[in-house]
Amino acid sequence: MPTTSPHDPKARELFDEMARWPIFDPHSHIDPTRPAARNFDEVLGYHYYTELAHSAGMPAELVSPNLDPETRVRNLAGYLDRIDNTVQYSWLLEIAKTFHDFPHDRITPQNIGELYDRAQRSSSGEAWDREVWKKSQLEAVFLTNEFDDPLEGWDPQKYVPCLRTDDLVLKLHEPTTVDRLRRATNVDVQDYATLRQAIGVLFERFVKRGARACAISLPPDFAPYRATAKRAVTPVRRAIHQMDQRPDEHDEVRQVVFWTLAEFCAEFRLPFDLMIGPIRNVYPAGVAGGRDLFDRRVSLHGYRELFNHFSGVTFPVSTLSPDAGGELVAYSWIFPNVIPMGHWWYSNIPAYIAADLRARLQAVPKVKQVGYYSDAYKLEFVLPKFNMFRRVLAETLADDAVRGQGWSIDRALELARLILLENPKRIFSRAGAAS
Amino acid sequence: MPTTSPHDPKARELFDEMARWPIFDPHSHIDPTRPAARNFDEVLGYHYYTELAHSAGMPAELVSPNLDPETRVRNLAGYLDRIDNTVQYSWLLEIAKTFHDFPHDRITPQNIGELYDRAQRSSSGEAWDREVWKKSQLEAVFLTNEFDDPLEGWDPQKYVPCLRTDDLVLKLHEPTTVDRLRRATNVDVQDYATLRQAIGVLFERFVKRGARACAISLPPDFAPYRATAKRAVTPVRRAIHQMDQRPDEHDEVRQVVFWTLAEFCAEFRLPFDLMIGPIRNVYPAGVAGGRDLFDRRVSLHGYRELFNHFSGVTFPVSTLSPDAGGELVAYSWIFPNVIPMGHWWYSNIPAYIAADLRARLQAVPKVKQVGYYSDAYKLEFVLPKFNMFRRVLAETLADDAVRGQGWSIDRALELARLILLENPKRIFSRAGAAS
Amino acid sequence: MPTTSPHDPKARELFDEMARWPIFDPHSHIDPTRPAARNFDEVLGYHYYTELAHSAGMPAELVSPNLDPETRVRNLAGYLDRIDNTVQYSWLLEIAKTFHDFPHDRITPQNIGELYDRAQRSSSGEAWDREVWKKSQLEAVFLTNEFDDPLEGWDPQKYVPCLRTDDLVLKLHEPTTVDRLRRATNVDVQDYATLRQAIGVLFERFVKRGARACAISLPPDFAPYRATAKRAVTPVRRAIHQMDQRPDEHDEVRQVVFWTLAEFCAEFRLPFDLMIGPIRNVYPAGVAGGRDLFDRRVSLHGYRELFNHFSGVTFPVSTLSPDAGGELVAYSWIFPNVIPMGHWWYSNIPAYIAADLRARLQAVPKVKQVGYYSDAYKLEFVLPKFNMFRRVLAETLADDAVRGQGWSIDRALELARLILLENPKRIFSRAGAAS
Ligand SMILES: [Zn+2]
Ligand SMILES: [Zn+2]
Ligand SMILES: [Zn+2]
Repeated sequence: MPTTSPHDPKARELFDEMARWPIFDPHSHIDPTRPAARNFDEVLGYHYYTELAHSAGMPAELVSPNLDPETRVRNLAGYLDRIDNTVQYSWLLEIAKTFHDFPHDRITPQNIGELYDRAQRSSSGEAWDREVWKKSQLEAVFLTNEFDDPLEGWDPQKYVPCLRTDDLVLKLHEPTTVDRLRRATNVDVQDYATLRQAIGVLFERFVKRGARACAISLPPDFAPYRATAKRAVTPVRRAIHQMDQRPDEHDEVRQVVFWTLAEFCAEFRLPFDLMIGPIRNVYPAGVAGGRDLFDRRVSLHGYRELFNHFSGVTFPVSTLSPDAGGELVAYSWIFPNVIPMGHWWYSNIPAYIAADLRARLQAVPKVKQVGYYSDAYKLEFVLPKFNMFRRVLAETLADDAVRGQGWSIDRALELARLILLENPKRIFSRAGAAS
Repeated sequence: MPTTSPHDPKARELFDEMARWPIFDPHSHIDPTRPAARNFDEVLGYHYYTELAHSAGMPAELVSPNLDPETRVRNLAGYLDRIDNTVQYSWLLEIAKTFHDFPHDRITPQNIGELYDRAQRSSSGEAWDREVWKKSQLEAVFLTNEFDDPLEGWDPQKYVPCLRTDDLVLKLHEPTTVDRLRRATNVDVQDYATLRQAIGVLFERFVKRGARACAISLPPDFAPYRATAKRAVTPVRRAIHQMDQRPDEHDEVRQVVFWTLAEFCAEFRLPFDLMIGPIRNVYPAGVAGGRDLFDRRVSLHGYRELFNHFSGVTFPVSTLSPDAGGELVAYSWIFPNVIPMGHWWYSNIPAYIAADLRARLQAVPKVKQVGYYSDAYKLEFVLPKFNMFRRVLAETLADDAVRGQGWSIDRALELARLILLENPKRIFSRAGAAS
Repeated sequence: MPTTSPHDPKARELFDEMARWPIFDPHSHIDPTRPAARNFDEVLGYHYYTELAHSAGMPAELVSPNLDPETRVRNLAGYLDRIDNTVQYSWLLEIAKTFHDFPHDRITPQNIGELYDRAQRSSSGEAWDREVWKKSQLEAVFLTNEFDDPLEGWDPQKYVPCLRTDDLVLKLHEPTTVDRLRRATNVDVQDYATLRQAIGVLFERFVKRGARACAISLPPDFAPYRATAKRAVTPVRRAIHQMDQRPDEHDEVRQVVFWTLAEFCAEFRLPFDLMIGPIRNVYPAGVAGGRDLFDRRVSLHGYRELFNHFSGVTFPVSTLSPDAGGELVAYSWIFPNVIPMGHWWYSNIPAYIAADLRARLQAVPKVKQVGYYSDAYKLEFVLPKFNMFRRVLAETLADDAVRGQGWSIDRALELARLILLENPKRIFSRAGAAS
C-alpha cells in the first residue's frame, strides 16, 4: 500500500478517485527543454534535500556543483537518514517507487547505487520526459520564464509560459538587467518611457507565445502604491544608468516598475501571481536554493491599493509565512480579484496545508480557490507533491464535508475537481482577452 | 438528520443536550423594533452573502438598495452555488429549513421563488418575531445602540441595550457627531469639560434603561494610553469645532475620549467590550458591510496600560485576525479583567473557532470564558450561528475532555453551560453596581 | 486509568512505552539543594496556579509570602475549581495522585487538608528528593544558574549547571549586577576589557563545574547585531558606572554584552539557549511570576546576523508567542545551528504543542529536534509535564506516522526516543570541546 493513500476509508475513496485525474499545474520551475531528471542527481539536487541535509549537518561542499553527479548523490545519501521523518523525504521515496521501481522503504548508502542505476536516463532523455508526463497524467505545467526567455522549442499548451518579473522590479539597477532587456526587446531602454515600451514588447511576445500568467515574488518590506511615472522619472533613469540611489529612490523604482507590470496585466488580461514574503540570502553560507527565509511581520493590508486599483486584474496570491494564512482567507473572501493559490514553500507541508485548506473551504467561495501547484524543478516531483495535497484534501473533505455535513462522495469530488482542475483552467484562461 | 449535528456519537450526545438550552447572546446588531426578517431579502441581505457572492463574481449593482427585495433575492440566488461550500451558506440553509420548512438541500434560481414565498412575513411581523424568538429559545439578546438611540419601545430584559461608542472616539471631528451628542444629551458640548459631561449623561441614561455593556471596535493602529485631559484640551476643542488637526492631535482626541469612556465604565460598572482589529473601507467598491478588513500586525501589548489602569473594569475582548488568538489566550490567562469573548467575524468559522476554543479550554480559567455571541442583524441568524459554535464545542469536549481526560458527559456539559450561559450572565450583570 | 494516557489504542501503546523511559530534562529552574517540594505550598506556589487563580478572581494577598504555607494553600484551594479545566490543573492532580496517593479526582477546600498532610515532607527532605527523582526516572535535569552561583553542593551529572545571562545583558546598568560580577570573578570590572575578562572567568568556572549550556531570555525588541567593542566602549563604561544613558546607548550595551557571550559560547562549545519573546512586568499588580507577557510582533529574521556569524554555536531556540511556531520551523529547517527546543510557557499547552510538533516532525531534520524540557521549579512537575508532551507526541505519531504513513510501532518509537533522549544528550554534550 503506498503510504500516500489515506488511512481513513472515506478519505481513501476520495483520494483514489482524485488519483485518477489529470494534473493541471499552474506554477512550476520546470525547464521545458529538459523537464524530467536525466539521473538521480537531478532529483536529489532539489534544494529541499540539499538544504535539509545541510541543516542536519552535511557540509555544503559535499553537494558542490564541481563534483560529478554520482558522487554528489552518494554524499547526500549518507545524510538522508537524518531527514527521513520529513514530508520532503516522502516525495523522494514516492519518486523512487513510482518511477524507478525502487523496492526498498528507505534510501541508504547501501542501496543508493542501485537507485542511481535505476534512475539513469541520460541516453533516453526525451522518451523519459514523455513517460513521466504520461505516468503523472499531466495535462499542463506552467513554467517560470525569465523575461528574456526565447520561448521556443516546446508546445505551449503543455508547457505554458509565465512571465517572471522579479528582475525587472527588484534588480533594474543591476547592469545585466537593462542589457538583457535591451537585447530581448530591441528597445533602446534609457528612461521610463523606453522602459515602458520595452515591457510592452515583452508582454506582446509572451502572450503571443501562449503565456497565461505574469508572476513575481516580493519581499515583506514591499507594499505597492500607485507610483506616478512623473515622480519616478529621475530615479528610473538613475537606476537604468546604475547611478547611486537613496533607499527611497530605489523603492520608487520598484514601485513604478511593479505598477507598470500590473497595468500591462490589465491590458493583456494576464493574472498576476503574487508570491509574498521571501527575503533572499538570509543564510548566505547555505546550499544553492537554500538561503532564503522570511520575516513573518507582513500584511496583505499593504496590497490594498493594488487590489482596489486593478479591479480587472486577477491576483492569485501565495504567502510564505505559515501564520499568514488567515489573512489570505479574509482578503480572498472580500476582494473579487484576490485568489488564494496553493500552498507555498515553507507553508507547503501537510500540517499547514490542512489548517489553511480547511479554512479556505469554509470561508472562500469555491470558484475562487486554486488548490495546488507543484513549484517543481523536475517533472518527477509534480505527482508526489500533488498527491500530498490530494491526500490532505481527501482527508479534509471526508471529515468536514462527508461526515461533517452529510455530503455525498460525489458532491465532495465535485468540489475537489473544481479546485484542482476547473478553477485553475478558468482563472488562467485569459478569459475576455482580445488576442 | 440536520447536518449541524456532529457525526461522532459522544459529540452528538453533548450537542443534542446543548441544543435544548436557551440562548443568551451578549452581542448582536438586532433592531429590537424589527428583530426578525420580514422577508427573505432581509436574510440574504446579511453582508456575508452579498460580499461572498460579490467576491465570487456578482456585480454589486445586483443587490443595490434601489432594487425591490424580490429582485435582489433572485439576483443573489443566481450566485449562491458559487459559495455553497461556505459555513455562511450552511447558516442560510439551516434558517430555510428550521424557520421556513424549506424542503430542498440547496437554494437555487429554480427554488428561490418558493423560498421567498415561504419566508414572506410582512403581514405578520411581530408574531413572527415572537415565533423566531421562541423557536430559538432566546433568553436575551444584546443590542448595539448608537449613543443617541432613544432606547425605548422594547423590553430591555430581552433586548439588552449596549452603548456603542465608535463614533465618539473615532469620529468626534465629524460635524454630525457633536450635533447628535448635543441633541441626545442637551449638553452644549464645546470643549473637553462639556464633552465629559455629555458622556456622563449618556452613561446615566443607558444604565437607567438597562444597558449592560459599553462597546467599541478599534483599528490596529490604536494603542490606548493614559491621556491627560489637560494635554487634550486644545485638540478636543479643535475637533469639536471641526478645525484642522495634525495626525498626532487626532490621535490625542481618540485617546482622551476612549480613556474617558473607560472611566465611566468603571464608575457605572459596565463591561467594556473591545473589538480589536478592523480597518474600515479597505475595499471601497465592495457591497455594504463588505468593505472592511484588517492588518494582522497588532498586539494586545498595546493595551497593557488600559488593562492595568482600569483593574476594576471588565474587558471582554474580541480579536479579528485569525492568528491573534494565541495572544488573547495569554492575556486572559494573566489579566483578571481580560475576558476572551466569542469568535468574531473573520475568525468566526469552525476551523479558527476550533483552534482558539481548544486553547482557551486548556489555559484560560473556565469562569472567564464567554463562549459565543451571534453578531447577528436579524434574529433568525442567532440559532444557526450558536449551533455552529455549540457543535465545535461539543466536538472539542468529546475529544479533549470526555475521551481525552475521562470526564463524564455531565462534567463536560457543566463546562459547556458555564461558558454558554452562566459566565455571560454573570459577567454582564453589572455586579457590584450601585444603581 | 490515569487520564494522561491517550484514548486511541495505537497512541496508548506508544505512550506506555515512552512512560517507561528515563527523562533527560534540558531546562528547568530546579534548586539542586532543595529540588523536591517540602510541602504542598511549594507545589501550589508554582506561578501557574497563583496566576490562574488570581486571573480567576483570587486577590493576590491570599498567596502573599507573609502568610504561612498552609494558609496560602487553603486560600488558593478555594479557587481551584475555577481553573480545573486547565492543563496546568491536570499536572497538579497527577502530582497529587502519583506522589501523594491522593484518592480524589478534584482538589477542593474539603480535601485540601488531607492533601496538605499527605504532601508534608519537611522532616524527610533529601529522602523525598531521591524518591521523586527515582519515581520520575530522571536521568539529568538542567538548572538555571545565576552567573554568581557558587555551583557547589550537588552532582553536576544529575543537576547540570547552565549559565543564565539575562542580568549581564539586560541589567548591566544596575549597580548590583556589576557588584555581583566583581565578587563572583575577582575581576575589577571597570570597562569593556575588564567586563570581557570577567565573563571569561565565569565561562571558565561554569564549564569546569560541568555546565552544558548558556541561556538567556530576550524581549521582542531585541535584534542582535555585530556590536563592535570599539563603539561600545563608552556606553559600557557608562553603564558599569550607572551613568545616564540614552536608549540607543542602552541597546549598544545589551548588544555588545550579548555578542561577547556568544563569542564565549563558541570558544567553550556551549549551546546558547535563546528564549525569545517575554516582556517583563506587563501586569505589575499580578502575583509573583505571573506578570510577564509578550508582544507577538517579533521575528527570527532579527537573529539572522547572529545565526550566520556564529555558525559554530548551536542555538536551541524557544519562542513564546503561540503564532511564532511556523517561523521557528522554517529557520530550523535552513540554519544548521538553529534547533527548535521544546514548547515554552504560553505555548506549552497541548493545543499549541500539537500544532507545532506536527509541523516540526514534518519539516525539521529529526536529529535537530529537542522534544521537551520541563521549565519546572520543583522536581514533582518534571514528570507530569513530560507526560503531557509524551502524550501529544504519541498521538501525533499514531496519527501521522503509524496510521498516516504505515510506520511500525518500533520506527515511531525510535523517532520518539531520538527527540526525547538522544538529541538533547548529544546536542548538550559539548561535543568537540577541548576541556
Ligand atoms: Zn516558484
Ligand atoms: Zn458586532
Ligand atoms: Zn525557564
